[in-house]
Amino acid sequence: MADVEFDHEVDVVVVGFGCAGAAAAQAAALAGASVVVLERASGPGGSSAQSGGELYLGGGTAVQQACGFADDADNMFAYLASALGPNADLDKLRLYCDGSVEHFEWFRECGVEFTESLYDAPTWMPPTQDGLMWLGENAWPYTEQARPVPRGHRPSTEGWAGHTVMAALVAAAGSAGVETHVDTRATSLVVDGDEVVGVVARKFGESVSYRARNGVVLTTGGFVDNEDMLADHAPALLGHGKVSDGLDDGSGIALGQSVGGAIRRMASIEVAYTALPAMLVRGMLVNGLGQRFINEDAYPGVFSHAAFHQPGPCWAIVDEAGLESIPEQDLWGVRPQHAAETLAELEIDLGLPIGSLEATVGLYNRHAADGVDGLFHKNPKWVRTLEGPWAAVDPRLGFAPAGRTGQTPGSGFSGFTLGGLRTSVDGEVISLAGAPVPGLFAAGRATSGIHGDGYVSGTSLGDGTFFGRRAGRTVASRTGSC
Amino acid sequence: MADVEFDHEVDVVVVGFGCAGAAAAQAAALAGASVVVLERASGPGGSSAQSGGELYLGGGTAVQQACGFADDADNMFAYLASALGPNADLDKLRLYCDGSVEHFEWFRECGVEFTESLYDAPTWMPPTQDGLMWLGENAWPYTEQARPVPRGHRPSTEGWAGHTVMAALVAAAGSAGVETHVDTRATSLVVDGDEVVGVVARKFGESVSYRARNGVVLTTGGFVDNEDMLADHAPALLGHGKVSDGLDDGSGIALGQSVGGAIRRMASIEVAYTALPAMLVRGMLVNGLGQRFINEDAYPGVFSHAAFHQPGPCWAIVDEAGLESIPEQDLWGVRPQHAAETLAELEIDLGLPIGSLEATVGLYNRHAADGVDGLFHKNPKWVRTLEGPWAAVDPRLGFAPAGRTGQTPGSGFSGFTLGGLRTSVDGEVISLAGAPVPGLFAAGRATSGIHGDGYVSGTSLGDGTFFGRRAGRTVASRTGSC
Repeated sequence: MADVEFDHEVDVVVVGFGCAGAAAAQAAALAGASVVVLERASGPGGSSAQSGGELYLGGGTAVQQACGFADDADNMFAYLASALGPNADLDKLRLYCDGSVEHFEWFRECGVEFTESLYDAPTWMPPTQDGLMWLGENAWPYTEQARPVPRGHRPSTEGWAGHTVMAALVAAAGSAGVETHVDTRATSLVVDGDEVVGVVARKFGESVSYRARNGVVLTTGGFVDNEDMLADHAPALLGHGKVSDGLDDGSGIALGQSVGGAIRRMASIEVAYTALPAMLVRGMLVNGLGQRFINEDAYPGVFSHAAFHQPGPCWAIVDEAGLESIPEQDLWGVRPQHAAETLAELEIDLGLPIGSLEATVGLYNRHAADGVDGLFHKNPKWVRTLEGPWAAVDPRLGFAPAGRTGQTPGSGFSGFTLGGLRTSVDGEVISLAGAPVPGLFAAGRATSGIHGDGYVSGTSLGDGTFFGRRAGRTVASRTGSC
Repeated sequence: MADVEFDHEVDVVVVGFGCAGAAAAQAAALAGASVVVLERASGPGGSSAQSGGELYLGGGTAVQQACGFADDADNMFAYLASALGPNADLDKLRLYCDGSVEHFEWFRECGVEFTESLYDAPTWMPPTQDGLMWLGENAWPYTEQARPVPRGHRPSTEGWAGHTVMAALVAAAGSAGVETHVDTRATSLVVDGDEVVGVVARKFGESVSYRARNGVVLTTGGFVDNEDMLADHAPALLGHGKVSDGLDDGSGIALGQSVGGAIRRMASIEVAYTALPAMLVRGMLVNGLGQRFINEDAYPGVFSHAAFHQPGPCWAIVDEAGLESIPEQDLWGVRPQHAAETLAELEIDLGLPIGSLEATVGLYNRHAADGVDGLFHKNPKWVRTLEGPWAAVDPRLGFAPAGRTGQTPGSGFSGFTLGGLRTSVDGEVISLAGAPVPGLFAAGRATSGIHGDGYVSGTSLGDGTFFGRRAGRTVASRTGSC
């Protein structure tokens, strides 16, 4: 072993106290291991606590059943394989779907409460305490690939619920006997031969070392806050907003690589676009050439991803009748910045090519007269002939006037990274040579998880906790070689 | 040093005899080093020899001057920074543009001959021996970002010219004293401490080892032929055609990683779509919803990249007048598979949404009546009002009837990878820790080069040879530590 005198000795060291770290630590502790979690911030939570708190769960959970939806693991798998694809990780996804009902119950046992009612309108985030929401399952083309069932599970909280989830998971980890060391940043792994046997960290400028008898679990999050890593691996996100707690600098990915861990799909990203679903479904989303490019009832993450690749700027276009039909609670403070009697006027106002909106709306209305969206199959319940006067919103301005929230208008896009360390379904970090790195485990956005090129809300808290628990069980059952 | 008895001892070992390997080997030999190139195939050439042979060069070459074009390095830089971007490597690109005239002369000194005439029509590959061609410089939006000057330099060969280039470079390397060992596949690097000091290879089942006193240069090409690496890093290319000699399996990238080399932008790819430029400029390219998405006079690599991200299938649409105006030599054997008197009939025939082509052509003609492409700024010389009867071509069927060439209709897309080892501008492989790996160098598609998200023909042979030469000079001047 390297010449290290350890300050602490435990069975398992978990690095990072977001959702994956909480799940891994609790699972290892429940399996009998002594566990310490190192968190560089002054308290647990990480980016998970700042998230919306949606959990992508299904297969027939109690909330789904109470709301009258019949689901099963195969149906859930069919949707996610398509929505997270192409090229979702089918081995991980299969386990994730097969274990989803049990995983839902685990959240409840941890103290996360779900109101057994459905929020049945397009939105980024329900303004209610409803425990179930649609996350794209009821939009084309997924309606043709799986039986539409809502699987967005939310704690009983109005608005952003990440803190609710994390409060429960942190408490559950504590109850299981997990110890937490905050203000403690892991700086290197200690190896003995090719085996990871500990962690060296910094705490207020002092070095502190941890012997991990069974192993180390990296749950440090992604790398959206690291500009160099973005430039090297996910340059598409450069210049856009960051969905994180500011500490997602890829430190754990680098730690894993430093001992031979392989990385995977580092260019995969999630992006969110500040366009208002309730407005889009009633009108249309067009690109900088006045063209539609997606069914506007698509899951917001899906229309965001599509918009990210369009010639911009994109616009939300709606007619007066549509605008007035939006419930106040679904408006999120958005008011049109542009209004015009005719499409020709609106084209000039928005800088769109002459005739482009007229052509787009003309074709839309031609199909709408037959009650269908002939291009993208938006649900007929949202399809009607659009007539002036017209309004337009620039999604780059966000959901509320800048003066109200301090929001700075930017690209309108913000996101995070989905690539990271290559892991087995049991959370083992896989080396460049294709074998597990002895003693090293990882979960959450420090790893490449179930995702291919697509993303759905709730799959990061979902895959982070699900595979975090698996990693925690695996490391707890491991016997180190020294 | 590791316990290796070396079978051969030289100053420099180059792994892979494509264009980057040839350039590196020759440069090292000209600088006085003894050099052996290991090539796993039975002869040199690699994917470079099977390429089109375009060389992206400019800044005022003799061919440009003879054809009456004034260019300079800044103008070349302005175009490439945009066309290879966003996020082109500006440090490498600056050197590449500043050194381009000298690099052109180097090709001539190596024996590559260029006819001093311009092929002035949109094409993938001129059917003539003209030495100069446009590679997108004369298409919007680049016309607004740099003075349009053609920079596609081609050896005096009709059609695909990669073999002509490689024959000259291989001969030049030989003349400089470079020794070649074919049928010899490098399997591992020999390290002494953290320094690369040699290579172990396999030749007909026997192990053969090489001491490299100065260092090793990896020039093995990309990884499009490695399905596992594609799945891990560039899954978008899975299921599409491969532009390679069949041996681009990422072996050199893996060798570099095995000694701590970092990788960069592994998801970056080039794709080519078998759509006919001469037909597109005279008509339009539409996606599976009947929408245009690019100016059809864009460089083919640019319209290919755009088509790759469209909802498919895409179609080339042209009217009778346009079709009949295409010179026979620019038709490449393509004949329309679909013909119709009206757009309504053509929509049904192609499975496009009812009214979609009518709307697209209607808007196009509205602008064309004013002599402009109001959406994408196709050069006015290609813009006219389109009238029936109509023809359509499915680019997935390729450039000639399947029966004629044995070509199997597929996705219509084929490509290769642009990501690889991280290198300094001098060809040093950079470690995960950000420092050069002592004794290890790389160039060509085994590395991440000048490219951001864009690609232009001639920049792989261009950047491979340019930075190959730099790597060869660097390794020749190095003194190993043992």
